[in-house]
Amino acid sequence: MRVALGVEYDGSKYFGWQRQLEVDSVQAQLEKALSKVANEPITVHCAGRTDTGVHATGQIVHFETNAIRKDSAWTLGVNVSLPDDIAVRWSKVVDEDFHARFSATARRYRYMIYNYQLRPGILRSGVSHYRTHLDEKKMHEAAQHFVGEHDFTSFRALHCQSKSPNRNVHEVNVTRQGMYICVDIKANAFLHHMVRNIVGSLIEIGLGNQTHEWIPELLALKDRSKAAPTAKPNGLYMVDVTYPERYELPKLALGPLFMLD
Amino acid sequence: MRVALGVEYDGSKYFGWQRQLEVDSVQAQLEKALSKVANEPITVHCAGRTDTGVHATGQIVHFETNAIRKDSAWTLGVNVSLPDDIAVRWSKVVDEDFHARFSATARRYRYMIYNYQLRPGILRSGVSHYRTHLDEKKMHEAAQHFVGEHDFTSFRALHCQSKSPNRNVHEVNVTRQGMYICVDIKANAFLHHMVRNIVGSLIEIGLGNQTHEWIPELLALKDRSKAAPTAKPNGLYMVDVTYPERYELPKLALGPLFMLD
Repeated sequence: MRVALGVEYDGSKYFGWQRQLEVDSVQAQLEKALSKVANEPITVHCAGRTDTGVHATGQIVHFETNAIRKDSAWTLGVNVSLPDDIAVRWSKVVDEDFHARFSATARRYRYMIYNYQLRPGILRSGVSHYRTHLDEKKMHEAAQHFVGEHDFTSFRALHCQSKSPNRNVHEVNVTRQGMYICVDIKANAFLHHMVRNIVGSLIEIGLGNQTHEWIPELLALKDRSKAAPTAKPNGLYMVDVTYPERYELPKLALGPLFMLD
Repeated sequence: MRVALGVEYDGSKYFGWQRQLEVDSVQAQLEKALSKVANEPITVHCAGRTDTGVHATGQIVHFETNAIRKDSAWTLGVNVSLPDDIAVRWSKVVDEDFHARFSATARRYRYMIYNYQLRPGILRSGVSHYRTHLDEKKMHEAAQHFVGEHDFTSFRALHCQSKSPNRNVHEVNVTRQGMYICVDIKANAFLHHMVRNIVGSLIEIGLGNQTHEWIPELLALKDRSKAAPTAKPNGLYMVDVTYPERYELPKLALGPLFMLD
């Protein structure tokens, strides 16, 4: 039987999604809790591996199991065994051809910026703090240059292992809500560090250090060293993954938290 | 010289606002950081003492000092010495007749409920989790009975030391934003546990266990034992304090976080 789960986590204390020897990961915690409920070893596959310190409200995973359990065992039951910064949000038995990573047609991330001269006292590892005023309208305008199919070499980590540097960005929106700025970006898939590298360069535009024309220049240069540094992981949330309609997966509010959809 | 500060904190790790021997408090941390910057012992007075596990985005304090410092010393400088779950948001030199507690004409709190069958993975000590669906419209309707001057004996802690059980509630609003419900309440002042006791009884109404007419009954009974249990501290935020206009204190977004004002 194949089961899909929607998973939320605060990534602050974890060395990323992926299971590793010697350090703690979200995957290791989730597999441990699922294996306890299934009473057999469970391996999970996720839609997208998040880095150290990155969060998720809408991570999707699937796993195979021989265990016959009620739906609530994979949600309530697993949550009992998970640390309190990881929670299953829903579960659904899916067709054998469903794959959390390979069936996904799009991913969506939100990057939350706290833009105020003084640091925050609440959710400090869940937002990225920028002291200088950022012009979110200029950031939004510049971000439109990312929409469409592009070679994102200037915005991928040097050690990124993807064969192709091309990705298709469906939509980017930069909006302000009081002291908070949200960079919301949806693409067919993302290269390693792609969201954080895009945000890093949008910050330069928000500060007025560059104009929106810098983005097409950077895309054309295909040179990581010409773009801005990678933005910190704190503010990054994986909020949604798109699958073909026929899988009928549940849809919850994207968040994070009190963000309107 | 008298200085007022706006302070934000995540109260999860503290035994409330008030300085105590043997356990850690927000007041103790703030006084330690201020004393370091002032190079003399500083005692602070707050607008309202919050309980263990209760948060603030808009706590106001004042203190007396002989130290002559730039404004940024009382904000940036103090923040360097504070733990990362407490932050000064602004500072202002005020008249000698200003008192954080006695000059205040109103306080405002927000209680954030996460209303979903499964527990949250993010901000778990910053929201109160209720699994069963709550009807926020019924809660809002019932909450209107609290508005005005009333004897709040049924909604004060048994050990509350206030001489009078009377308080004047200016406004209460219960609103839903996706899975989150916000109970927003403003009054001239609050009795001990008053917000959490009001929320506890509104929860009973949201669940359908009581109708809105229960509230005037409870108010008339003047008996704490007849009302619902105290709601957990997790979801409670002190978001604002009102002072006479002439003090011209800065006004920041109330929050918490991405909540619209």
